[in-house]
Amino acid sequence: MEKYNNIKKLIINKPLKLDCGVTISDYPLAYETYGNLNRSKDNAIMVFHALTGDQFASGKNPVTNKDGWWSYVIGPNKALDTNKYFVICANVIGGCMGSWGPSDLNKDTNHPYGLDFPVITIKDIVRAQESLLDHLGIEKLLCATGGSMGGMQLLQFCATFPNKTFSAIPIACSASHSAQNIALNELARQAIMADPVWDKGKYFLKNTQPKNGLSVARMVGHISYLSEKGMQEKFGRKLQERGDYDFSFNADFQVESYLRHQGFAFVERFDANSILYITRAMDYFDLSRQYKGGLTEAFKNQQTKFLVISFSSDWLYTTKENKDTVIALNAAGTDVSFAEIKTDKGHDSFLVDEPEFLKTIKGFIDSMHIKFKNEKRI
Amino acid sequence: MEKYNNIKKLIINKPLKLDCGVTISDYPLAYETYGNLNRSKDNAIMVFHALTGDQFASGKNPVTNKDGWWSYVIGPNKALDTNKYFVICANVIGGCMGSWGPSDLNKDTNHPYGLDFPVITIKDIVRAQESLLDHLGIEKLLCATGGSMGGMQLLQFCATFPNKTFSAIPIACSASHSAQNIALNELARQAIMADPVWDKGKYFLKNTQPKNGLSVARMVGHISYLSEKGMQEKFGRKLQERGDYDFSFNADFQVESYLRHQGFAFVERFDANSILYITRAMDYFDLSRQYKGGLTEAFKNQQTKFLVISFSSDWLYTTKENKDTVIALNAAGTDVSFAEIKTDKGHDSFLVDEPEFLKTIKGFIDSMHIKFKNEKRI
Repeated sequence: MEKYNNIKKLIINKPLKLDCGVTISDYPLAYETYGNLNRSKDNAIMVFHALTGDQFASGKNPVTNKDGWWSYVIGPNKALDTNKYFVICANVIGGCMGSWGPSDLNKDTNHPYGLDFPVITIKDIVRAQESLLDHLGIEKLLCATGGSMGGMQLLQFCATFPNKTFSAIPIACSASHSAQNIALNELARQAIMADPVWDKGKYFLKNTQPKNGLSVARMVGHISYLSEKGMQEKFGRKLQERGDYDFSFNADFQVESYLRHQGFAFVERFDANSILYITRAMDYFDLSRQYKGGLTEAFKNQQTKFLVISFSSDWLYTTKENKDTVIALNAAGTDVSFAEIKTDKGHDSFLVDEPEFLKTIKGFIDSMHIKFKNEKRI
Repeated sequence: MEKYNNIKKLIINKPLKLDCGVTISDYPLAYETYGNLNRSKDNAIMVFHALTGDQFASGKNPVTNKDGWWSYVIGPNKALDTNKYFVICANVIGGCMGSWGPSDLNKDTNHPYGLDFPVITIKDIVRAQESLLDHLGIEKLLCATGGSMGGMQLLQFCATFPNKTFSAIPIACSASHSAQNIALNELARQAIMADPVWDKGKYFLKNTQPKNGLSVARMVGHISYLSEKGMQEKFGRKLQERGDYDFSFNADFQVESYLRHQGFAFVERFDANSILYITRAMDYFDLSRQYKGGLTEAFKNQQTKFLVISFSSDWLYTTKENKDTVIALNAAGTDVSFAEIKTDKGHDSFLVDEPEFLKTIKGFIDSMHIKFKNEKRI
């Protein structure tokens, strides 16, 4: 499609055996970079995106024409300062912004994959992205970071490649998806699959999308990204452009109007099958299970220095869950620090202008840069 | 329908002017009673049901053939001891278990109401139920109680009829529906309305139900009724009848299987339009707004003695929200006590066997009975 013309892609030739058993090769990985890689190659930072994110983490997204999802964080003089650092972000496989996903053409059928796309895991996603580092000639990253599903990719990346990044900042995430989070993802999937337009994933045959179901799925997300208190402060019981109740099922309350808007806007930019595949990858994510000895075993031989960040009002990936990662990293003898940012903004905190959070990651990355340069010099 | 043959109904002749402006009369109110009213009529307890509850609070529900939703609480020697007390429970108007609701025949069109049913409020619901007390010859109740939406009805009942019950136990509720709760209800409504079978509420014309949408709506409820910790303990990441991931969109996890089951079972017993109307009544509920002076004003001249109960892990109607009611009752000079029950069972706690909770309400009701008898004697 024309709107995807500006998308940078790497075709990965190295075969990848997925966790489900299928082996793939010659698949596209779309990515974006910000800033410049220096000569000593000690300034590269990898950013992993969340469920509905993409590679356009900063600047203007050429497809949606909106600011990148981490514009607050990445840019000149920002926490991830592109005057100093070279920032890389790739679209996950299974996604719909240029990387190999269920809306891509299946050469066997000459139709998009739909449900013929294999079920992928966070480990598959991360292994595909590691190939990008080879391509860019980066032996070791200065830092890798990501929030939510981005943080899960990061934990997997560190476990799978224990010496590939000097430092890591997992944000608002978990090493093992909780029952409540599986339940919320299942709710989103069921909302999509309940829509008859979804048609077992074959909606592309009619050149359409299960808009109703996808919109409801998106509302689930937006409720879970805010805290109860944050929602009360932002919306409370404020009415939408009226002085009294309408005694109807119109959007009387601002919070209803907000959710409807978020739902409708989302269907314009995201593929319903991608939501199914990516949420499934999140639900399958369980580092303890992968490393039979448990989470501590996953971080054995870890060379990376960690800063784990949680948000006090995040009920999706609670401080407790983030601390469980810290405990395992400590038990594995890893260099790890931890910060809980006090805020009412819930899980969304990592995406908004939260000064204490921005200061914390900036300070950590800058100090890691000095240490990394020293290490390289020795 | 035949399955509704065993349902006890009162036809209410007294006209009721609804908050939306419509006046109704000669409408049915279905109800059930347990135990016997004594001669001095000092042993009557009114129970208000929650969103998906009905009048069959105890014993066997003749329509679903399942135990009543408050069987743990109501019965011989139980907290609401039917050897001593006369317990009354009515189906809310707007519901679908015999009381006047959107699935009832609209005499003007000779079809069920569907969206021609007027939007009702918690106050409308409560005023209809007050007529039942007249019919049963009860001047003043010993106690009235209810959890969740039942608690909201109770707070409205006390505000509207400040001397109609000697005591009251609002459980896990709020005097003003929060933004998060409106959002969750809106999610449920959007799930129903997204289902094309819903057809603007006219599904009855095809003698069907929007099962997919209603099932998703029910899943929203079940996620919100449990606590994160309770869900983790109950389900965790346990797989459903398999040793490994299935790499598909089947219900791999027990929590997925649980939600699907709850969704499917629900559509057999509940009307989709009733969910729309009852959730709307909940969202419109705001006692502070009704009494311009705020919540304290709502409880002025209150004669009733209150025990407010919350559950520590309830994130739908938090302890804080319940305490806001206590603060307002105190400020109004009302006799009020408060108990937070420590439990991991979340909002669902009032429906399950939670010994400390059962002991608390039993002790309160028994002591109120003695006081009420003394008061009547003087």
